Amino acid sequence: MTKSYVVGVDIGGTNTVFGIVDARGTIVATNSLKTQEYGDNAEKFVDHLADKISLLIEENNLRDSVRSVGIGAPNGNYYTGTIDFATNMAWKKSLPIVTMLSERLNLPTILTNDAKAAAIGEMTYGVAKGLKDFIMITLGTGVGSGIVVNEKVLYGTDSLAGELGHFIVRRNGRKCGCGRNGCLETYCSASGIVRSAHEFLDARTEPSLLRSIDRDKLTSKDIYEAASRGDAIAIDIFNFTGKILGETLADFVTFSSPEAFVLFGGLAAAGDLLMNPVKEAFQTNLLKVYNPPKLLFSSLPAADSAVLGAAAIAWEAKSEK
Amino acid sequence: MTKSYVVGVDIGGTNTVFGIVDARGTIVATNSLKTQEYGDNAEKFVDHLADKISLLIEENNLRDSVRSVGIGAPNGNYYTGTIDFATNMAWKKSLPIVTMLSERLNLPTILTNDAKAAAIGEMTYGVAKGLKDFIMITLGTGVGSGIVVNEKVLYGTDSLAGELGHFIVRRNGRKCGCGRNGCLETYCSASGIVRSAHEFLDARTEPSLLRSIDRDKLTSKDIYEAASRGDAIAIDIFNFTGKILGETLADFVTFSSPEAFVLFGGLAAAGDLLMNPVKEAFQTNLLKVYNPPKLLFSSLPAADSAVLGAAAIAWEAKSEK
Repeated sequence: MTKSYVVGVDIGGTNTVFGIVDARGTIVATNSLKTQEYGDNAEKFVDHLADKISLLIEENNLRDSVRSVGIGAPNGNYYTGTIDFATNMAWKKSLPIVTMLSERLNLPTILTNDAKAAAIGEMTYGVAKGLKDFIMITLGTGVGSGIVVNEKVLYGTDSLAGELGHFIVRRNGRKCGCGRNGCLETYCSASGIVRSAHEFLDARTEPSLLRSIDRDKLTSKDIYEAASRGDAIAIDIFNFTGKILGETLADFVTFSSPEAFVLFGGLAAAGDLLMNPVKEAFQTNLLKVYNPPKLLFSSLPAADSAVLGAAAIAWEAKSEK
Repeated sequence: MTKSYVVGVDIGGTNTVFGIVDARGTIVATNSLKTQEYGDNAEKFVDHLADKISLLIEENNLRDSVRSVGIGAPNGNYYTGTIDFATNMAWKKSLPIVTMLSERLNLPTILTNDAKAAAIGEMTYGVAKGLKDFIMITLGTGVGSGIVVNEKVLYGTDSLAGELGHFIVRRNGRKCGCGRNGCLETYCSASGIVRSAHEFLDARTEPSLLRSIDRDKLTSKDIYEAASRGDAIAIDIFNFTGKILGETLADFVTFSSPEAFVLFGGLAAAGDLLMNPVKEAFQTNLLKVYNPPKLLFSSLPAADSAVLGAAAIAWEAKSEK
């Protein structure tokens, strides 16, 4: 029997990256195309994507070994196979990406949203291998999540379970892109921590390394670097952010009682600066009946994890025929 | 083939009620005993419980038709079959009720906590029949919950998923029996609404029907009756309570995206007084991507629902042999 492979496709607002992956999570070959160059011309985008995937398969002589395609995308709906109202994408409504791609490639194709794909990736190839109940939290520009219950991702009635980035952590708090106020991602994301920096710099008068940076260009990386060099305001920004995240993770435990949280993304890379206050707030706020769930970090290489997550779900795909 | 029956046992701090139930939810016969009379003598309690169940089965000539026993109890652990640290029970540590009762009755026996049993009861016999994803919220002296995902109760890693009564709704809010502050049940339970009444009566000076009642004896029923008669403070207490509950249910949707919430218990019986502010806050706070889940009420008779919930889980019980 020939060895089996799948294709993992990560569709992002800027780039779309894809790779051929084996059952152990080895990426055999990758390629990419620029999503945003296609504007709202979804047909052309999918045509080119299919052509490039086919070419990659041919170049690697794997036409008979590739079993299926998995796609991870913001607002990817597992049930309908459509990317719906993705705010970063130029095609505005609902894109039936599963039908469009599977027709062109003649391969079983499956879709989920990017954070759920990351959870499945960690369960299949990463640090969550062997865990039955965990919650994946992706701390990027926004905050995404994938809740795993009994080794299955929780989709809920409409594939929209696990939108924990829009869990409200401060009633009447910061304005969120979703139209409401106080969502987790307005505080505990790369953009949220920059908003915190603006607030802290306005509210306090002491000197800070951050004051030498153009306010409009301030990034989470700047805050991390300042904190690493002992800047008091930058450290307090991490303490503030970590406290909110730790409190919130403790609340999530009352929902699904996971064995672990798996954190991923730029902000998680801040290490102890973020995690010390997270741990403290988590322990203080956890209901005492629980054995404290572990706080783990993604073990997948950052550059590969999106493709690996999309590949991991591909193993679930079945032919529509 | 003879018709099958199960026994549903609801163990409470004051009373234990049990009944023989058929597959359609008809209670054939019931009896009870007083839990608290046995103090910490768990052996004697289970002896008498088993004797009374046996007697009820014999009296109804159902020895060959009763298949299994289901138990609902506060802090009942589905995985271990033990009632752990139930604060209202005199036996303090861990009571292996499944082993103790199944040995005495020689019937497959299964346990879950009371709110999860209520959820299974609604799914088997009540208003949640046919729903795949819903959240049961019991609004009694405390607040309990049972989260159903894809027709299965969510237990999590240790059977302690769904402790939503201890979800924190006001950071640094009211002191809770769990040792923390601001839990949902300190606001949106029968005891929570009495605490709200105390706060409102202290903070405001206008006349109220509630002022004629001895403060130490004030009950949620008194507040309901005053509100029904148009008492402004009592109505505001319900608005305050309903707003918190509605906001919180909207947050729960980001977790499991249920089709419905099913409300049960004394406070839910307040009807529009509670539900109008709940609905308003729920709609205002729900993330716009969701189709609003339905807000339903238990359809089971209040007096029978605990026994029916315990009976409903009995159908899952398997012989340990």
